[in-house]
Amino acid sequence: MRLSRYFLPTLKENPSEAQIVSHRLMLRAGMIKQQAAGIYSWLPLGHRVLKNIEQIVREEQDRTGAIEVLMPTVQAADLWRESGRYDGYGQEMLRFTDRHERDMLYGPTNEEVITDIFRNSAKSYRDVPLNLYHIQWKFRDEVRPRFGIMRGREFLMKDAYSFDIDAESAKRSYNKMFMAYLRTFERMGLKAIPMKADTGPIGGDLSHEFIILADTGESEVFCDKRWLEMDLKGRNVSYDEDLEPMFQELTSIYAATDEMHDPATCPVPADQLETRRGIEVGHIFYFGDNYSKPLGATVALPGGEQVAVHGGSYGIGVSRLVGGIIEASHDDAGIIWPESVAPFPVGLINLRTGDAACDAACADLEAKLTAAGKEPLYDDRDERAGGKFADMDLIGLPWQLIVGPRGLKNGVVELKNRASGEREELSVESALAKLVG
Amino acid sequence: MRLSRYFLPTLKENPSEAQIVSHRLMLRAGMIKQQAAGIYSWLPLGHRVLKNIEQIVREEQDRTGAIEVLMPTVQAADLWRESGRYDGYGQEMLRFTDRHERDMLYGPTNEEVITDIFRNSAKSYRDVPLNLYHIQWKFRDEVRPRFGIMRGREFLMKDAYSFDIDAESAKRSYNKMFMAYLRTFERMGLKAIPMKADTGPIGGDLSHEFIILADTGESEVFCDKRWLEMDLKGRNVSYDEDLEPMFQELTSIYAATDEMHDPATCPVPADQLETRRGIEVGHIFYFGDNYSKPLGATVALPGGEQVAVHGGSYGIGVSRLVGGIIEASHDDAGIIWPESVAPFPVGLINLRTGDAACDAACADLEAKLTAAGKEPLYDDRDERAGGKFADMDLIGLPWQLIVGPRGLKNGVVELKNRASGEREELSVESALAKLVG
Repeated sequence: MRLSRYFLPTLKENPSEAQIVSHRLMLRAGMIKQQAAGIYSWLPLGHRVLKNIEQIVREEQDRTGAIEVLMPTVQAADLWRESGRYDGYGQEMLRFTDRHERDMLYGPTNEEVITDIFRNSAKSYRDVPLNLYHIQWKFRDEVRPRFGIMRGREFLMKDAYSFDIDAESAKRSYNKMFMAYLRTFERMGLKAIPMKADTGPIGGDLSHEFIILADTGESEVFCDKRWLEMDLKGRNVSYDEDLEPMFQELTSIYAATDEMHDPATCPVPADQLETRRGIEVGHIFYFGDNYSKPLGATVALPGGEQVAVHGGSYGIGVSRLVGGIIEASHDDAGIIWPESVAPFPVGLINLRTGDAACDAACADLEAKLTAAGKEPLYDDRDERAGGKFADMDLIGLPWQLIVGPRGLKNGVVELKNRASGEREELSVESALAKLVG
Repeated sequence: MRLSRYFLPTLKENPSEAQIVSHRLMLRAGMIKQQAAGIYSWLPLGHRVLKNIEQIVREEQDRTGAIEVLMPTVQAADLWRESGRYDGYGQEMLRFTDRHERDMLYGPTNEEVITDIFRNSAKSYRDVPLNLYHIQWKFRDEVRPRFGIMRGREFLMKDAYSFDIDAESAKRSYNKMFMAYLRTFERMGLKAIPMKADTGPIGGDLSHEFIILADTGESEVFCDKRWLEMDLKGRNVSYDEDLEPMFQELTSIYAATDEMHDPATCPVPADQLETRRGIEVGHIFYFGDNYSKPLGATVALPGGEQVAVHGGSYGIGVSRLVGGIIEASHDDAGIIWPESVAPFPVGLINLRTGDAACDAACADLEAKLTAAGKEPLYDDRDERAGGKFADMDLIGLPWQLIVGPRGLKNGVVELKNRASGEREELSVESALAKLVG
């Protein structure tokens, strides 16, 4: 992609409305534009990151056997009256009437709709276990939206819903999501700690929040220091096996949110306890028959007896993760994207646009990288080198490939690693080999 | 994907609420479930088709140089007051207030928001031409939603918006979209005819609707019989070249919607004129400075003078296309998917689940097809063959690979082409070679 034809409205100054670093950097890097309080457009660069994160979430859900669907954003109020949540949900639910004066709402979550889908078709024990998920926009009418897309009103969420014949089977579904979440966040370069959590308006009696530690986190969290050194990489997770031992092993290491932490009963000695601020990026719930009972989602046992299914729900804040990753990975110059979510794998900088040798070398590199599946963002603008370097650092692509007239005379280009700052001079062929791997 | 673990709630009976064949077949094939009038959930099979169509649309937009963004579904009413459309838009616009009593709406289209994005960043003639598109859910509060997702209220649309320095450049952008639309529909196996059309609430003076012919179409359309034989396949479209001659050649062949057709002035002799019913699947507009002027979207010319940019907008009904393709491609037994949008490329039918030879052969075929990028939908259910055949015909996968105990004894499986109905007995290896190509 050539920057001269792209739409990347970067800002030199820090926007005054942004209080936290991810919001500041997303605005400066031209990733988002606010359209109303807590409502954002995703500009090309931001959209690419969002799609990459969405795809990682999708792949890890699919791996567990969960099946993708897509529920609408607008829901009928009647279903929520049936489940008993309509009156209690509060002002965060955006309610309205359609032209025929029917009560509708913009879905803040989908337990009711998915249970309606399930009860409409599933008849017998043979239809479970089943886990259906979707990745869809939600709306929660926060009183004070803030921190950019981290606490917006319209946000993209992956929510999965499991249906099982009994509590034991439901726990197996819960464990799959528990491990899938750890894998998902790890692929994005995040350390997310599963913490015992309050179940809130979803209800139920088993729940974990997945929290990444950051000074700008919205709430206080507590965990055993061992979590800080924990490395989940290389841990083999097979969803056909019993994951309960792994679940027990991981949850035996203390970690709890503010609501669940009680200093009086905390099993971790003070010098082993880490008190930090955290950002919630995922939340999983087991809630038994809380929804299946009022909504009549039952299946027949082999003997014919009807039982209400056991349910769980499992959310990941897809759009929020864009901000969460930036909070965890940036420096004074800008964003540092992990390769797995980077909008482009490499930025190609032409130090002298208009110079025949530089233009030809860059066009050749652009073509070869693209052919190898590593399409670069090519800065072919007629601008000063300083501005190009600053923009490229700001938008945080993992690699920068810098082509200038002096280097070309000596047959070399420069390759810079955004994270480490290391630069090396290489032949064009060696640089390509390093990038294409 | 194994059917025993999938969620495919097919229906044996025709649902009484469905008046047209696509609605009937989508309900029977377990592709969608209605959640409220004109509002649907996309079940796994329907979701896969929707995603395939979306991806074709995306690829053909990208090919033109258009750049993907994502605008929110909820918009502030103020922008629509600024453009002058708020009061006139009528009841199809879903309006509501948020908890702070601010006027909001669920976007039925995005001219205002995209123009706001453009004016916020674009400053000079160097920032155009620019074409930004997104694929996002829209809401239009139809009085009488009907025909399933063909005329729903919440629907998925691709909408692109071009910004150009003058009318001549804007026409080039229009021509690119014109040809991209023909390519897009052709890839889905559809013959879409571009017809001179009324500009309606979008405004402007140049507009084409892309219409597919179907007896269940919502309106009458008129075209030269030559359109019926027209084959656009193999036509080379280069977006770097001037597309005006191709545009002139194609639009010289008469085609017009009801609103634009006047028998008195129609240049086509009666015996050469086709009068049919049509379904609109795309609509493109050139509207000059209709939005840029009231919203102040200007750029500086090289001399410094500020000019309002010339705009166009270009819509494709992504979710509607699912129904449109079924209207164009089905038979009495069910849907016949073109390979480009099929939810799975092949259905694998085990005629005797539980028979060791059949199970082993099917598992082997499933693994090999999946490894070759042709993941089958494998009917491994313990059901009678008749029911399996009927379901597989109903959901319309392009190929059926049928494995039974008698065939296996002779070393053969059966391969059925859904469209032609042709069946042939082949060795396992030959069948695989034919499917994997």
